[in-house]
Amino acid sequence: MAQATLSISSRNYGSWSLRGWLLCKFSGIDFEPVMVDSDDPSVRAELLLLSPSFLVPCLTHDGVRVWDTLAIGGYLNELSPDAGLLPRERVARAHCRSVSGEMHSGFSNLRSALPMNLKAHYPGFKIWAGAQADIDRIAAIWNECLSAYGGPYLFGAVPSMADAMYAPVCARFTTYDVPLDPACDAYRKTIMAMPLMQEWIEAAKTEPDEVEELDVEF
Amino acid sequence: MAQATLSISSRNYGSWSLRGWLLCKFSGIDFEPVMVDSDDPSVRAELLLLSPSFLVPCLTHDGVRVWDTLAIGGYLNELSPDAGLLPRERVARAHCRSVSGEMHSGFSNLRSALPMNLKAHYPGFKIWAGAQADIDRIAAIWNECLSAYGGPYLFGAVPSMADAMYAPVCARFTTYDVPLDPACDAYRKTIMAMPLMQEWIEAAKTEPDEVEELDVEF
Repeated sequence: MAQATLSISSRNYGSWSLRGWLLCKFSGIDFEPVMVDSDDPSVRAELLLLSPSFLVPCLTHDGVRVWDTLAIGGYLNELSPDAGLLPRERVARAHCRSVSGEMHSGFSNLRSALPMNLKAHYPGFKIWAGAQADIDRIAAIWNECLSAYGGPYLFGAVPSMADAMYAPVCARFTTYDVPLDPACDAYRKTIMAMPLMQEWIEAAKTEPDEVEELDVEF
Repeated sequence: MAQATLSISSRNYGSWSLRGWLLCKFSGIDFEPVMVDSDDPSVRAELLLLSPSFLVPCLTHDGVRVWDTLAIGGYLNELSPDAGLLPRERVARAHCRSVSGEMHSGFSNLRSALPMNLKAHYPGFKIWAGAQADIDRIAAIWNECLSAYGGPYLFGAVPSMADAMYAPVCARFTTYDVPLDPACDAYRKTIMAMPLMQEWIEAAKTEPDEVEELDVEF
């Protein structure tokens, strides 16, 4: 039996679920994802119990319940300090915390205008100015990281908390056909080609198509 | 000369500035706040330099720049692990991370409907349902913490990262005359009576009244 469970919502739409799942995978923890079906009122009650703020993901591990994606990242980094969730070097570490935090609390225009939808593809999608400003800021963050730490991941050779935070953005950029400069596009491709991302996307494709909008922010 | 600087915006309106300042104070770090005047275009350029996402606060310390309030908390906790920013005990620690993260990314209805405004007081302020749901969730978080860890702070005898995150909420509840149950109201009073809060509020009162709306989320 796995040591831990991670409650997740839709694989196709649940960008926070994807972040939490990647963090768990990167950390090497032994865990089982538990799908929460938000349609079913009884399961909805279970969701209330699993995650007091109605938010997924929630990690249950060895007597601890952690909800909120950054909190899960912080908890897992304590548990597996050598997994690379945060870089070892202190300047890079502070940088990784900063860009992860910025994704956690910001980019609301991007989140509402370009919701994650792994099954879809919209060539030539028209991006409004508010979302474009978010995209420009994200491109600046990525370029700064890729040039400072040498890629292919944001903080170097291994995926970190920051890559988990920005992975759903890579998925959005793919779905909505967002034009990117070559360095950012190469990073997007690196993330989309990760075996873990491919595993998640394949599972998303097997989900029923009639998944309703969940009562969470994507 | 202080080791570090923390860029802050308005003391009266800047809830993230207050959080960052409290985290620095709780950690015991030697720092100087640097007021960023967002009206002045040249200072606005400085702000761009200080904080790439246009967000304050930004901590500059020993060659490190950390922006984003949670990232500052994480950085300071590494620097001063005994300051109590995160509880020592692992279940409490995960809990503290979770409620801090929830404040960091959530409660947008509360933030927009009841912006921090330390100088104002609105007795009998009418609270709309969306903001009330946020208030109810915050009351549930506070009650759970106060009963689990015995108060007077959310995680026991000393202020933690969570108290810094929720301090501007205490200020809002005071400004907008929000009815609270006795335990939550006692907690609100504890935070408002902290000498550090009083110091911040006194400084806010000396700010010019014509401070314009800053281009940041309060």
